[in-house]
Amino acid sequence: MTANNRIVSGMRPTGPLHLGHHFGVLANWLKLQEEYDCYFFVADWHAMTSEYSNPKRIKQFVPELAKDWLAAGLDPNKCVIYQQSQIKEIAELHLLLSMITPLGWLERCPTYKDMKEQLAAKDLNTYGFLGYPVLMTTDIIMFRPGAVPVGEDQLPHLELNREIARRFNYLNCPEDKPFFPEAQAMLTKESKLPGLDGRKMSKSYGNSIALGEDMDSVRKKVMSMLTDTNRMRKTDPGDPGICNLFPYHKIMTDAGHLPEIEKGCRDASWGCVDCKRLLMESMERFLTPIHERRAQYDKDPDLLWDVLNQGNAKARAAAQETMASVRELIGFDF
Amino acid sequence: MTANNRIVSGMRPTGPLHLGHHFGVLANWLKLQEEYDCYFFVADWHAMTSEYSNPKRIKQFVPELAKDWLAAGLDPNKCVIYQQSQIKEIAELHLLLSMITPLGWLERCPTYKDMKEQLAAKDLNTYGFLGYPVLMTTDIIMFRPGAVPVGEDQLPHLELNREIARRFNYLNCPEDKPFFPEAQAMLTKESKLPGLDGRKMSKSYGNSIALGEDMDSVRKKVMSMLTDTNRMRKTDPGDPGICNLFPYHKIMTDAGHLPEIEKGCRDASWGCVDCKRLLMESMERFLTPIHERRAQYDKDPDLLWDVLNQGNAKARAAAQETMASVRELIGFDF
Ligand code: SF4
Ligand code: SF4
Repeated sequence: MTANNRIVSGMRPTGPLHLGHHFGVLANWLKLQEEYDCYFFVADWHAMTSEYSNPKRIKQFVPELAKDWLAAGLDPNKCVIYQQSQIKEIAELHLLLSMITPLGWLERCPTYKDMKEQLAAKDLNTYGFLGYPVLMTTDIIMFRPGAVPVGEDQLPHLELNREIARRFNYLNCPEDKPFFPEAQAMLTKESKLPGLDGRKMSKSYGNSIALGEDMDSVRKKVMSMLTDTNRMRKTDPGDPGICNLFPYHKIMTDAGHLPEIEKGCRDASWGCVDCKRLLMESMERFLTPIHERRAQYDKDPDLLWDVLNQGNAKARAAAQETMASVRELIGFDF
Repeated sequence: MTANNRIVSGMRPTGPLHLGHHFGVLANWLKLQEEYDCYFFVADWHAMTSEYSNPKRIKQFVPELAKDWLAAGLDPNKCVIYQQSQIKEIAELHLLLSMITPLGWLERCPTYKDMKEQLAAKDLNTYGFLGYPVLMTTDIIMFRPGAVPVGEDQLPHLELNREIARRFNYLNCPEDKPFFPEAQAMLTKESKLPGLDGRKMSKSYGNSIALGEDMDSVRKKVMSMLTDTNRMRKTDPGDPGICNLFPYHKIMTDAGHLPEIEKGCRDASWGCVDCKRLLMESMERFLTPIHERRAQYDKDPDLLWDVLNQGNAKARAAAQETMASVRELIGFDF
């Protein structure tokens, strides 16, 4: 097993990305593409796991997700952007891994129960939902990465991933020549941007700002944010520590301004409207280039499909290489 | 849903076929190929379900199984003979169906427990083993057959198959335009040829005669069969009803001879050695053309691979057609 520079990560195409996704995941991907051989995929089969009763919903979100990525700054010359469902080899390896994965490993997977509760509204008592860690494992080991960027909560999945890889190696490889590397966790220091109301940012809470949202709508949302609710008038001193807006400055505004904001808020020399205007400047600085990049793809959708088709071709070639070796190892190379 | 003339059936490549397989299944296939648009497949992924800990065993049995079929008289000009693992679309459709199949349907599948007990020696508590009816369903509905030849014991599987097809149709098709037909059971009147010792014929019981077995070995086995054990001398009357050999005459010897054999046995005018010699004549008449056809493929293995490659290409084309429609129905046609 050689140390390698490859990284694999994906997102489910289930809706437009918002600022929370950006600072939680995408910002990290932007850094990774500069240093690693990155494979980023639109996890459309995974979306099917929960959306199977209305799969046509997924279709629109596939190009939108890729567009969000490109708008945010992923560069197809620096990373491979592809669609899971366009790589048939993923379905093949999934079938093979399903046969070596003990049921108990899946049933005791701590995220299985969690996710089922989260998605309780949908009927998720399916065979595929029980097996989604097998599909996740497939997505990853197919490209034999050295590491996978994960948040703390995904560590159990990564461990399962390694166990399945190890099991394949144990069953099919000489002890000193394991085929699948055990991908290491690359723990991402997430910047958690809360929602406009202080809860977790989520489209379903109505407290999010989408990456593609037009500036007027962003302005309306920012200007109507609840700040420190004890601060009724500008002359009342405020507390940034209990204000929904201040965390946005911490992440989006130049760090040099933070001491003045805090001080001004606490000694009532700086009002919430000033504070919101300053945040709007930060929002514009951040969102304008994203909107500009997005506009190119909106104007010429072929551009986007070119990126996806080229990414799919690269990913497919890598997957075919893996499967050729896998078939040789299991004796399915006819 | 239009009535159609297509039939799909497969066998797991886990060892050489014997006379029991021939009269139980293959003889029926030989008839079917004359009347139907038949798709017969080597179920190598299915073999992996139980052989995953030593998959390389499967490899040798794949061409051997196809050779057994061709030797028995399957004609590649009349039917499509292909390998499951060479059709990537099967893995894709399997992945999709896994997402719509309720876990409970699999857990309560009556054959699940049975088969697990049968194969208790192997560790079959795997995700793939629980899901093997999903894979069986995929194998079948991929080719949208009107009917499937099944034995009584497989009726629950076929019912599950229909339920999954119905569920796909319900979720993705207009009510009056279901995409997958619900394949009808074509109950096969099996001729059950018992083993040489009267138990079920099975290689593991050592009571079988392989289709490719050389005639000397067949002769030794036939001549040493236990007949009516109460008949110590030729002058003792015998009872064909409790003799291991008589069922072979019923299936392999010209029916016109049966009354004489029975009478001669019961009135001791005909001895067991006569009876065995007559059976050997039937064996030779039956096995010689099988051995001759087999010899052609043994002499020129490329012939066999040509048959498989051509069958794979035909099956792949049909599968790709199905998947194009499926992707359109679920909106995965990018
Ligand atoms: S001045 Fe700024 S930090 Fe202070 S309460 Fe108002 S919005 Fe929040
Ligand atoms: S004569 Fe034939 S049928 Fe009768 S006991 Fe012998 S072998 Fe069996």
